[in-house]
Amino acid sequence: MSEPLRIALAGLGTVGAGVIRLVETNAALIARRAGRPIKITAVSARDRSKQRGVDLAPYAWEDDMVIMGERADVDVVVELVGGSDGPALACARTTIEAGKALVTANKAMIAHHGLELARKAEAAHVALKFEAAVAGGIPVIKGLREGAAANEIERVYGILNGTCNFILSAMEDSGRDFADVLAEAQAKGYAEADPAFDIEGIDAAHKLSILAAISFGAEIDFASVETAGIGRILAADIAQAEALGYVIRLIGMADTDSSDGTIRLFQRVQPHLVPFDHPLAHVDGATNAVVAEGNFSGRLLFQGAGAGDGPTASAVVADLIDIARSMENGGEAGPAFSVPVGELEAMAPAPSGNRLGRAYLRFLVADRPGVLAEITAAMRDAGVSIESLIQKGRHDTGGEVLVALVTHEGPESAVSEALRLLEGSPSLTQPPLVMQILGE
Amino acid sequence: MSEPLRIALAGLGTVGAGVIRLVETNAALIARRAGRPIKITAVSARDRSKQRGVDLAPYAWEDDMVIMGERADVDVVVELVGGSDGPALACARTTIEAGKALVTANKAMIAHHGLELARKAEAAHVALKFEAAVAGGIPVIKGLREGAAANEIERVYGILNGTCNFILSAMEDSGRDFADVLAEAQAKGYAEADPAFDIEGIDAAHKLSILAAISFGAEIDFASVETAGIGRILAADIAQAEALGYVIRLIGMADTDSSDGTIRLFQRVQPHLVPFDHPLAHVDGATNAVVAEGNFSGRLLFQGAGAGDGPTASAVVADLIDIARSMENGGEAGPAFSVPVGELEAMAPAPSGNRLGRAYLRFLVADRPGVLAEITAAMRDAGVSIESLIQKGRHDTGGEVLVALVTHEGPESAVSEALRLLEGSPSLTQPPLVMQILGE
Repeated sequence: MSEPLRIALAGLGTVGAGVIRLVETNAALIARRAGRPIKITAVSARDRSKQRGVDLAPYAWEDDMVIMGERADVDVVVELVGGSDGPALACARTTIEAGKALVTANKAMIAHHGLELARKAEAAHVALKFEAAVAGGIPVIKGLREGAAANEIERVYGILNGTCNFILSAMEDSGRDFADVLAEAQAKGYAEADPAFDIEGIDAAHKLSILAAISFGAEIDFASVETAGIGRILAADIAQAEALGYVIRLIGMADTDSSDGTIRLFQRVQPHLVPFDHPLAHVDGATNAVVAEGNFSGRLLFQGAGAGDGPTASAVVADLIDIARSMENGGEAGPAFSVPVGELEAMAPAPSGNRLGRAYLRFLVADRPGVLAEITAAMRDAGVSIESLIQKGRHDTGGEVLVALVTHEGPESAVSEALRLLEGSPSLTQPPLVMQILGE
Repeated sequence: MSEPLRIALAGLGTVGAGVIRLVETNAALIARRAGRPIKITAVSARDRSKQRGVDLAPYAWEDDMVIMGERADVDVVVELVGGSDGPALACARTTIEAGKALVTANKAMIAHHGLELARKAEAAHVALKFEAAVAGGIPVIKGLREGAAANEIERVYGILNGTCNFILSAMEDSGRDFADVLAEAQAKGYAEADPAFDIEGIDAAHKLSILAAISFGAEIDFASVETAGIGRILAADIAQAEALGYVIRLIGMADTDSSDGTIRLFQRVQPHLVPFDHPLAHVDGATNAVVAEGNFSGRLLFQGAGAGDGPTASAVVADLIDIARSMENGGEAGPAFSVPVGELEAMAPAPSGNRLGRAYLRFLVADRPGVLAEITAAMRDAGVSIESLIQKGRHDTGGEVLVALVTHEGPESAVSEALRLLEGSPSLTQPPLVMQILGE
């Protein structure tokens, strides 16, 4: 057996501690599968004295995580600090510039700076790997980059945020409203004290931008992800969806649009109505799942724990084993985004307007005559064909009435136009909620 | 870009034609992702004149597929002939002995001769890859071997045969009996004229033995897979299972048992009752799905098309891209079964008797007094605790009565003992059917 692969850990939160536990617990099998031992040599974190439930004594302590990659006893730096910039980014840059491989679980950093880091990694002939950045323990980056490598990916989408899925599942099970369930999730530690990043869809958007870049050979473009969160979903929406044969899930969805002769990238995070017979309808709790539709493979589904120290550590160490195996063979681990950075296409964002689909629209309106006529007239004038409509008094808000409708298939631009016609109408007590229905 | 990776195709059935179509259709993106073009140079099949819907003119025809690996214009042979021995095995051996890489979709050959071929491949420093041999287009070999590489796998199981799953789903949807649905599946081409290989669980057992070897670092042991098929399942079983909250799926399941201090391998293919809230309960039609439970990753699910020319070709070409990338880097593709053959353990089969679980037992009995007392007495005497029991007259068979029961958790040996006590009883009109209930 060859020399150990020597690892420095930057960041010792729950995932960092998980990586230490995993590398220690499964040391023998990791060495067998990697062809060499994987050995942590140095660690670094903001606070040296904090109790982490793991013994740090065997490892050299480095006060400055930014320079870990420069240590002579380190082959790979694992960055688990988090944050798109700051020390994480500084650490990543110096590591790669020092000619060392970088493994990271940092979706925000990859979403914002992945292209720069991949370019640097190629120039330095070192690996840049980030399996743990998307969907926790699920090997979906590998699944797309290698498993589905023979395919033109037609569409990639999935449940990318465990907190949102936990909340939506709990709303479904309990019939309670969003705020209620969020408070409980926070109390139980399933949601952050400041949950905005999760529930507004930003975290899912980070992950989606990474999946899209790999799937479509596109330069990563986080800024163009259209993002809507789950904060406005009511218990009544979930009940209504169920009556129609759907569950509500926050879906990140990406595909390409070449309708005008230029290839454009569509990326959106939005709550969707998912038909009961779709595999994503059965993804409950904090689970994540990603679907990739290839032109030969058909629909591939990857599902598992989207977060947590064990699953995330599993993905981090899978990357380390890949690096150990490829270095063993004198090679590199291949381009971070599946093709070399120079071959990634800079794709302009695709407009949502000419996308065809069915949508769920929900209005909260004043309980007075003519409101329904006003809504249906706007639909008609915008050319939106209504498949079903229900109007319901809401017991919980006094006189307010809920109107929910499902459209026939049509362009999203028509729905937008209908909503524009209704904009500012005094009949609406709050802006309408639009959710796409996940199509085949 | 480097020189093309040159491929010879042995076998030109639907999958072979699919590989040709895929390599031609996606040539540009394959070259980008593989770092070099993948080019078919030679083809071979039994019958040169057969119409296959693809143009073979660009490729050299080789009459003798066994010697394809010896051609100077070939780097990799793709074996798609099928059959555990015969020309497929001869072709595989000569290819590896000629120092060329082998890619195969042949589960029977890997199940029977995988160890020998892997040993030869290691000696020759060439790749042996068989992603397409298990679960069609789903990259589950890669998912286990690399994606979950950091984990001790605690259990691997799944729906490994699309024909059986198609039949069980159709029985579920239509309420019809097995023979009926099988005939329809044969008429539609979803089942072979001689369906024994599929419906008796042999095909699933081939795949399971491959998954088990990779998951547990065990020498492949197809002969020890306990195998039961789906041919005895009645519409009444499916209805009964549904009333209890389950669907019936043919599950291949493997884990290890170290209860006596020696590590033993358990492998079984058997119809199971799968709880509605388990992801496998929602795998319908010809779809395959594999679950791997890792000690850090938790439960990982890989799902997709288990057969068909497109999905299978997708898996074949993913292997080719891996080989192209690793050769590009001057390396090999790593050991076929995740660790070198010399490090695989020869594990004795684990007995099923001390497995704990719940089971569904179904009896067809004569409609006369005392039969139920006889069955329940046998359960009591064997120490099997009954959770629920139902007795139903069967309209379709005259006087026969169906008795179905679900046991509380207990050792499988107790159930076997109960069945032994009932053996030869004139009350039973046919041998009982036992199905395990898939546990958490």
